[in-house]
Amino acid sequence: MTITNLISRIRPTDGIAAAEAQRRLDAKTKPLGSLGRLEEIAAQLASIYRSSSADIAPSPRAVVIMAADHGVASRGVSAYPSAVTAQMVHNFAAGGAAINVLARQMQARPVIVDMGVAGVNDWPSAVRRHAIGAGTRDLSEGPAMSVADAEKALLIGAAIAGELAAEGVRLIATGDMGIGNTTAAAALTALFTGRPAAQVTGRGTGIGEDVLARKSAIVERALRRNAPSVGDPIDALAKVGGFEIAGLAGVILGGAASGLPVLLDGFIAGSAALVAVALAPAARGYLLAGHCSAELGHRAALATLGLEPIVDLGLRLGEGTGAMLALPVLDAAAHILSEMATFESAGISGPR
Amino acid sequence: MTITNLISRIRPTDGIAAAEAQRRLDAKTKPLGSLGRLEEIAAQLASIYRSSSADIAPSPRAVVIMAADHGVASRGVSAYPSAVTAQMVHNFAAGGAAINVLARQMQARPVIVDMGVAGVNDWPSAVRRHAIGAGTRDLSEGPAMSVADAEKALLIGAAIAGELAAEGVRLIATGDMGIGNTTAAAALTALFTGRPAAQVTGRGTGIGEDVLARKSAIVERALRRNAPSVGDPIDALAKVGGFEIAGLAGVILGGAASGLPVLLDGFIAGSAALVAVALAPAARGYLLAGHCSAELGHRAALATLGLEPIVDLGLRLGEGTGAMLALPVLDAAAHILSEMATFESAGISGPR
Repeated sequence: MTITNLISRIRPTDGIAAAEAQRRLDAKTKPLGSLGRLEEIAAQLASIYRSSSADIAPSPRAVVIMAADHGVASRGVSAYPSAVTAQMVHNFAAGGAAINVLARQMQARPVIVDMGVAGVNDWPSAVRRHAIGAGTRDLSEGPAMSVADAEKALLIGAAIAGELAAEGVRLIATGDMGIGNTTAAAALTALFTGRPAAQVTGRGTGIGEDVLARKSAIVERALRRNAPSVGDPIDALAKVGGFEIAGLAGVILGGAASGLPVLLDGFIAGSAALVAVALAPAARGYLLAGHCSAELGHRAALATLGLEPIVDLGLRLGEGTGAMLALPVLDAAAHILSEMATFESAGISGPR
Repeated sequence: MTITNLISRIRPTDGIAAAEAQRRLDAKTKPLGSLGRLEEIAAQLASIYRSSSADIAPSPRAVVIMAADHGVASRGVSAYPSAVTAQMVHNFAAGGAAINVLARQMQARPVIVDMGVAGVNDWPSAVRRHAIGAGTRDLSEGPAMSVADAEKALLIGAAIAGELAAEGVRLIATGDMGIGNTTAAAALTALFTGRPAAQVTGRGTGIGEDVLARKSAIVERALRRNAPSVGDPIDALAKVGGFEIAGLAGVILGGAASGLPVLLDGFIAGSAALVAVALAPAARGYLLAGHCSAELGHRAALATLGLEPIVDLGLRLGEGTGAMLALPVLDAAAHILSEMATFESAGISGPR
């Protein structure tokens, strides 16, 4: 598969199915439009599945958690050392992290992928091995990776999405782990939203004022030095992205190409989506924004993507946790469409 | 039971259990505070259950859906005729309404209560019969009900909450049905938030501009004519409330007295909570605001109550639907506290 090939497989979502779903919702025993965004989400799921029938339930589902390290972490942009990336991947595999807890609750299968975690890692079998390198290079000194590696990461992500679709998965959520990855995500977000680095660089795992100023200067320098362009999204991804971000951009494109909804987590997912939509504008119709992260810059990314977050609970953990919290809302939208009585079936008076 | 007695049974929630829960959360494998409101909710549940142990899961749970009619509906304040109240109660009993669909998904038991639905109603056994009258009197002409009836409704609600607690229910959500009830709720909200009627009177089931202006004038007139006072909440409830609103205020007080979290739905629940908290300020610690309704005035009620809504999805249906959407977030908070690994147990490096 080539990237051109992948992009060409993404069809626009089905507006007729969405309109038909809305007509069915309008016959249900409730005032018109009174279920607010549940109705919009039901219509969007119908447009993605190209069906307004009962079958818009986004189950079974998976959350693809991609992990990688970042050369820029050596500049002290995070409150945690790089070693935590690998340690957390082990935690994911053992089932003890926040994403495991929430994925269990929401019945999403975790798919853990090493896209380029530093160190010699003896992964348990639950971790898929797709490491492109032992972390990226420092993006403030030059390109984080080669264009060939960015393409490779994109295609790995797309292949995983395609594989999940073939197994019958009906929704893919995104998750991430990577000490330093909010720095790369900030650079991509600044580029694709057109905002200055200081407006989209946040505290990540919880850095103080001084480190934040340094991090923002590093993002600015990465952009100045590498001069990425919105017109060449893969080159931009190579210059200031990360292996897991590139992989997630591939998951988004692959999910859309397979006709599946892709439920985005927070800031890292948002930066991957900015790249994916720049490559393939039709992918946008397949995206749902699970939540609004507390990380500065995520709101700007969502605004550029034209996505409204489903929940907004001040999370800033990543891993896919924010996406998980939105899943019951998607389920609710599907259930409303399939299970609610109509005015006619229940014998209820309409508006006077 | 008397109301004085009921109020005296409401203890302040347990701040020590909340602090202990937060300490446990701080040891989990995530940056401090990075799960945002999930952490606050876990701490609040711990403070309500007076325990930071694993056992803060808000299950099993019930949603108490109280229905009643409103004399003021004859003034055309709603897009629907009063007959719809009874029809919808039948729909609840048959399992076809939005609240049934969402309560099934969220595993909440619906408890349907006739607090005063107009007409001769041959309810199926699923409907509990506690009708105080065939709807209230027109609140724009005089008191909606007597003080004795308001007290009776409050105690019915409290008794139902107490009964559910005795059966092992660990959380009570509120729901409502009553054509015309946003008019009564607007009057109570104006009174307890100190805002003019026009700022808290909304479109309810979907009325147009003209009807809205008339509805707002009716709310204003109800307040002028009855002259309720924030200093006498039961009298205010009698003058401008409704049977189901009074019943829900009782459910809130009874839930708090039984040491259970009470998950509020939207605008109607908010008006009942304003009355309940005016009667018993300690009840506030037991409340969680499930969602922010699209109904004008709900945000003002939440601000006065000092509650932050958990989801905000533009719903304006009532029935308890907004509360249901928040339940998975409460479950998530409980699961995080009980299931997540700690830095120590997972062998993960802390911040540098």
